[in-house]
Amino acid sequence: MQKYDLISDFTSISPKADILAATHGWRAKCLQRLVRMDLPVPKVVTLPANTVRQIAIGHSIDAKAILSNFVPNTLLSVRPSPANPEWGGPASLLNIGMNAAAHEGLCLSHGEDAANIIFLQFIQAYAMHVARLDPDMFDDLSPSLEGISAALKLYELEMDESFPEDPARQLTEVLRSMSRAWEGTTARLLRQAKGAPAEAALGLVVQEMVQGMGQGLSGCGIIQFIDPVAGAYQVTGRFLAQGQARVQLAESKELYLTRDPRGPSLEDVAPDIFAHLLDIGALCRVKLREEMQVEFTIENGKLSVLDAIKVPRSSRAGVRIAVSLAQDGIISHNEALVRIEPRSISDLLHHQLDPKAPRDVMASGIAASPGAATGRIVFSSAQAQASVSRGEPCILVRRETAPEDIRGMHSAAGVLTERGGMTSHAAVIGRGLGVPCVVGASNIVINLREKTLACADGRQFREGDIITVDGSKGEALVGAVKLMPPALDDSFNTLLSWADRLADIGIRANADTPADAQTARNFNAQGIGLCRTEHMFFEDDRLVVMREMIFANSPKDRSAALARLLPIQRADFVQLFDIMQGLPVCIRLFDPPLHEFLPQSRDGLRELAEALDKPLSEVTQRAEALAEFNPMLGMRGVRLGVVLPEIYDMQAQAIFEATVVIQRRGASVVPEIMIPLVSAKREVELVKSNIDAVASRVRVSSGVEFDYKLGVMVETPRACLRAGEIAQHASFLSFGTNDLTQMTYGLSRDDAGRFMNTYVQQGVFLEDPFQFLDFDGVGELLHMGADRGRKVRPDVVLCICGEHAGNIESIDFFRKAGFNYISCSPYRVPLARLAVAHLVIADGKLN
Amino acid sequence: MQKYDLISDFTSISPKADILAATHGWRAKCLQRLVRMDLPVPKVVTLPANTVRQIAIGHSIDAKAILSNFVPNTLLSVRPSPANPEWGGPASLLNIGMNAAAHEGLCLSHGEDAANIIFLQFIQAYAMHVARLDPDMFDDLSPSLEGISAALKLYELEMDESFPEDPARQLTEVLRSMSRAWEGTTARLLRQAKGAPAEAALGLVVQEMVQGMGQGLSGCGIIQFIDPVAGAYQVTGRFLAQGQARVQLAESKELYLTRDPRGPSLEDVAPDIFAHLLDIGALCRVKLREEMQVEFTIENGKLSVLDAIKVPRSSRAGVRIAVSLAQDGIISHNEALVRIEPRSISDLLHHQLDPKAPRDVMASGIAASPGAATGRIVFSSAQAQASVSRGEPCILVRRETAPEDIRGMHSAAGVLTERGGMTSHAAVIGRGLGVPCVVGASNIVINLREKTLACADGRQFREGDIITVDGSKGEALVGAVKLMPPALDDSFNTLLSWADRLADIGIRANADTPADAQTARNFNAQGIGLCRTEHMFFEDDRLVVMREMIFANSPKDRSAALARLLPIQRADFVQLFDIMQGLPVCIRLFDPPLHEFLPQSRDGLRELAEALDKPLSEVTQRAEALAEFNPMLGMRGVRLGVVLPEIYDMQAQAIFEATVVIQRRGASVVPEIMIPLVSAKREVELVKSNIDAVASRVRVSSGVEFDYKLGVMVETPRACLRAGEIAQHASFLSFGTNDLTQMTYGLSRDDAGRFMNTYVQQGVFLEDPFQFLDFDGVGELLHMGADRGRKVRPDVVLCICGEHAGNIESIDFFRKAGFNYISCSPYRVPLARLAVAHLVIADGKLN
Repeated sequence: MQKYDLISDFTSISPKADILAATHGWRAKCLQRLVRMDLPVPKVVTLPANTVRQIAIGHSIDAKAILSNFVPNTLLSVRPSPANPEWGGPASLLNIGMNAAAHEGLCLSHGEDAANIIFLQFIQAYAMHVARLDPDMFDDLSPSLEGISAALKLYELEMDESFPEDPARQLTEVLRSMSRAWEGTTARLLRQAKGAPAEAALGLVVQEMVQGMGQGLSGCGIIQFIDPVAGAYQVTGRFLAQGQARVQLAESKELYLTRDPRGPSLEDVAPDIFAHLLDIGALCRVKLREEMQVEFTIENGKLSVLDAIKVPRSSRAGVRIAVSLAQDGIISHNEALVRIEPRSISDLLHHQLDPKAPRDVMASGIAASPGAATGRIVFSSAQAQASVSRGEPCILVRRETAPEDIRGMHSAAGVLTERGGMTSHAAVIGRGLGVPCVVGASNIVINLREKTLACADGRQFREGDIITVDGSKGEALVGAVKLMPPALDDSFNTLLSWADRLADIGIRANADTPADAQTARNFNAQGIGLCRTEHMFFEDDRLVVMREMIFANSPKDRSAALARLLPIQRADFVQLFDIMQGLPVCIRLFDPPLHEFLPQSRDGLRELAEALDKPLSEVTQRAEALAEFNPMLGMRGVRLGVVLPEIYDMQAQAIFEATVVIQRRGASVVPEIMIPLVSAKREVELVKSNIDAVASRVRVSSGVEFDYKLGVMVETPRACLRAGEIAQHASFLSFGTNDLTQMTYGLSRDDAGRFMNTYVQQGVFLEDPFQFLDFDGVGELLHMGADRGRKVRPDVVLCICGEHAGNIESIDFFRKAGFNYISCSPYRVPLARLAVAHLVIADGKLN
Repeated sequence: MQKYDLISDFTSISPKADILAATHGWRAKCLQRLVRMDLPVPKVVTLPANTVRQIAIGHSIDAKAILSNFVPNTLLSVRPSPANPEWGGPASLLNIGMNAAAHEGLCLSHGEDAANIIFLQFIQAYAMHVARLDPDMFDDLSPSLEGISAALKLYELEMDESFPEDPARQLTEVLRSMSRAWEGTTARLLRQAKGAPAEAALGLVVQEMVQGMGQGLSGCGIIQFIDPVAGAYQVTGRFLAQGQARVQLAESKELYLTRDPRGPSLEDVAPDIFAHLLDIGALCRVKLREEMQVEFTIENGKLSVLDAIKVPRSSRAGVRIAVSLAQDGIISHNEALVRIEPRSISDLLHHQLDPKAPRDVMASGIAASPGAATGRIVFSSAQAQASVSRGEPCILVRRETAPEDIRGMHSAAGVLTERGGMTSHAAVIGRGLGVPCVVGASNIVINLREKTLACADGRQFREGDIITVDGSKGEALVGAVKLMPPALDDSFNTLLSWADRLADIGIRANADTPADAQTARNFNAQGIGLCRTEHMFFEDDRLVVMREMIFANSPKDRSAALARLLPIQRADFVQLFDIMQGLPVCIRLFDPPLHEFLPQSRDGLRELAEALDKPLSEVTQRAEALAEFNPMLGMRGVRLGVVLPEIYDMQAQAIFEATVVIQRRGASVVPEIMIPLVSAKREVELVKSNIDAVASRVRVSSGVEFDYKLGVMVETPRACLRAGEIAQHASFLSFGTNDLTQMTYGLSRDDAGRFMNTYVQQGVFLEDPFQFLDFDGVGELLHMGADRGRKVRPDVVLCICGEHAGNIESIDFFRKAGFNYISCSPYRVPLARLAVAHLVIADGKLN
């Protein structure tokens, strides 16, 4: 055993000791701070990570040297001290040094009951954690002399040696055991799952025990000064009179921490101690620049502080605490910003499940759109709308969603799909609408005919059954689960206003509807960066006219149908311009293939034939003729604009006439028009000359002057390569990273779900490239496009309107590539605002 | 009228005159050559293009000065002389100088009948081409004195002036009229359609008339020394005794050109003249280095040569003539190569329609795969196979074809589809199989239920009706039309052997089947550059097992199904290796999405359910679950290889075991294995490690050593961008330009047909990028991929196996980018071999 020399590298904590979290761990560091603040901290000795690692490989610590730092016969605790509190560690061991002699002493000082409890507890803990015996074997023993004696015998029987009496031996074994536990595979995996590096090390802390049991006022507790859910000032916590760890002396009176109608409290019976605790909290807040939670023990009326950690908090409380600390001048605005992880705030924009509520999970998939919602199961968009019109919130459950489902998704409180990934239709639209959404729940089976939903565990649900979707966690739960409301409070707005002062890239929102636009305004977006106009044609009254347009046999018939859509579109744009009050609105011309507007089912086709007064066979044949093998790569975007120019002409006219309406009211707007799916310069030239002509006509017919900008959506690899010549005709280039990623990889986001998990698990893709921008491939094309565009036209506005705009790593990429603005889902705008501030701070090494 | 000075810039042709085709036109140049060869050419004066252009804008030519070059009172002809004979030009005018006096002279020298015909003809021609009168007005007039007098009166009545008597005036007006006709819009469009540049100019040739009518042996004729269809030596042509142009003296005897059983011939009655003509042909062949067709006139037993042009010829004759000239040392091998346009030889590899056969066109579309075939209409692949098994050639008529139709296409003599473009499935497979194919015949309507085919003109055809597909011209014809067999003759092989001596890039063939491989060998391909293995699974016996594999519920079941496919695949490869006799064979691992192997129809699904002994509902549900939104961008290629590695493992085992079979026979083969649809390095690593493991197992189990190469198919933009890291694991990079073009443009080749015409017409794309490589966009990615791959791995083999490999401009691109070889359809190999020689010659300015 004694292969190596005894080591004695440890430090007794004092105000002047040199303790770093990196070497001794967070707990040692924290204890030293408390000592420096002159708080009543029991004596501590700390073993640095190096020492612990040596112990784990077989060195022995000089336990006697450690013990010599404490009053002889003092009982000790050993607690883990990793560099980060989240990385866990082996269980603490209390009351090291207990033996027959110590038991005798404790009987005198703390009473026989306390002494028995403490001794029996120690034997059990030692047997379990150090000797690794079965914890159940001591279960039936009572804390009495007989029980202790039985425990010692059981130990001897099992271990073939008597229970160690020597405190130095006990301490040596405890330290060895805890050092080795840290190196176990399970412990390693657990902490790595929380982000610990492979070489993460453990420090250990040896501290003098104070006993929460015995004569006079004794007990242990935790006190917090903040409501951990909302973040407001409020004293909370708990107190266990005559207790230590989770054990309490039998027949001891209950004592609440704070004044309580149910009975006496620590605040009542020991107002001085309670006041002292409040002082400690206030001192910690200023000195440690953080809201702390204090662990304390009272032994015979004397307060000791064992530990203090950052108070656990909800995202919402986190924002409030950081803002409050900054407003009190304790931390800087920048530090308040840095303390809030951008991803955490997306939780704040939606209803959340109460974390304390029980969860009966029925399906799990991808957390595609955050927030939670409860409602009745419906299996179709029509049912979703019907349900909402009855005033019943519903959850739309689909194999996957298609553009036809937009209105259903609008109506639904939440969405659950069997297929799809983070950038599937349901996910993108869900985030855009702020509708909680779980996609790719591949463990459910939907039976549309029977209107049932079968789960992997065999349970079946029917239409009308109530479920809850947790889009933040990617789970569907049985029944109604308690929700917490969103938290758009003052602290949140204050924090973001600080963020905006630092911003070096603009942030707009993708918004298709007045509701989206209003959300964008609420979240302080600097304009609309992408308004998809096709969604406007899925409303019932418009869809019929749209289909007439599609089935028109001549440009003339097509124009007639479009003429009926014109006033509707114009009204859409007037409404959008109104809401955005002069902020820029970038409108993308019609993009999807026409067949998306046709019914898929035979029944739908029959209805359409009736509506159009045409034979079903003709309607069916036309619908078939419009079908495409790869709609993503088919007749859509600018290709429609070139082949059927009447559509874009109508849209341009609607945009310009809406502009005239706004100008006539004395307000001002400069619409931005964007051409989708461009791959060649000439496409832009053709569309531009048509749109310029429409503008001239509207100027002449209205007598009103107006400006507009025409730009290009760069979403094919070729448009990136040819961005130089394309920029000749485009005042802005808006990069659509969704489609660009699809084409660069040759990967359909709607079909990728089937293998994306395998691909990420096998390390083919480090991350899903639809969630995390592929810097190596797509990124190079973006750089090329930006550089080439700007070289030819130095004032060209560069922007990004794909899903990646809401992602923090991607935002950094776009800042550094010199983009003018990003445009993301309205609900991602706050996250982006905060993320930009983080990046600026990180670049400047501000603090 | 006389705005400008008289001009007199013309040249009298003599052996020493300075006549260039560029300034005086091809006819003047040709006549000068004939003069230099001392042939009996009537006196000629030529007006250069500059002069003609000045005449067109109003200058007058000094006609008297021209006339002074000829014997007084000589009749003259004026003929057009553009730089290229294909550019057409105004009609020739004969017998200028005819008037009452000349008529009188002709009556004496040539007889009254001839004189009358000549005078009346001249009046008519002048009235029509110079005075622009209605040609019908002289229709009823007979060649007599009364007729002439009536014609002169009609002219005077219409023109308010008498018919011009002065030869100088006549010549002036003829020259002016012809000059202006050249500038007319119709003439301009017609010649531009034949490739004439906008500034193409016209020379004019004024020549002394010799008369084919009159006393003694007289007449006009054309003589050729080559069979214009096959190219063999053979005297052909025609002779019109007592005739001129298309007019013949009444009651003159018929006289054949060559000896003829039907009656007397020129060869019989004037053997000296005939021999002289043969001498002239032989002289022309040597001096003009070309097979010429000689236009001659005999006047009273005296031979004159009016003109000689390159003899018109079929593609087949063209090859034979060029090779024969080179073999006789008249031209160099290189010149023989240059004279044969590569595109023209694809005609030679297929049956052709007899150009003289009548054409009753029922449908027209895109000429997708050359050659012609006749057969009975069938509307399904099953019917096609049934038809062939009955020994009846058939034409497969489909809306479009899918991989399921491969066997039907194999069976069909020709294919006609309603949809699709040059790179649609039907077109690509048609070219690969050498099956004549017309696609995108959008003016037909197929009714599958009724089994009828309706044409735009209202005609309807039923299954079993006989039609002919002309894949070289893009037409379908009613009934059986006479065909000419393909012409893989010695001349053709000789020419290509000369081409191969110059080649600086390898040429392989894409070949999936033993038949393809045999064709590739026949056409001297240097190996197989792309063997698509998926086609192997569409055979009936395999398809069922394939479907079992797809429906397998576990890797174990999947492997069991694959184990049954293994021996079949192995046999496929043994056969391929056998045929290729040690030439390299590059095998692409399984590529298409699995759902392509499932039946599309409900009936098919029911059959499948029976075959698999599973409930229809399960089969239907699984089939639906496998369906994809964008199959092109879905779960296919290496993605299948990563997610279901058993498939590639089986294929690798089959390849290696086939290699062992060949090695054991004492022959040798180094198979090349290609991974499709790669977009990330890690995909290659994963597949490579599996395949290497399979190779080791086969080596161990067989005890036979073998080598193989593993490479990557670069067909996503990302693979081009990341070619550097991909090349670390790839011994070759084969660029798939079809998919790369699709992804770079975001354009599905199956769906692009709908707007490709509009796009090319509007100049959005200069050409269909699936036919002509997009140098600017796709080309840049190819350069990047090649450069980055080679930088990391200098010995990496670069190749191209997309459709563009068969295109001459693209081949030049790949040569210059340093590619090692190209691989194209077997039927394109000869074209590519010739094209490479052309490019090498053009680079070296050889001649």
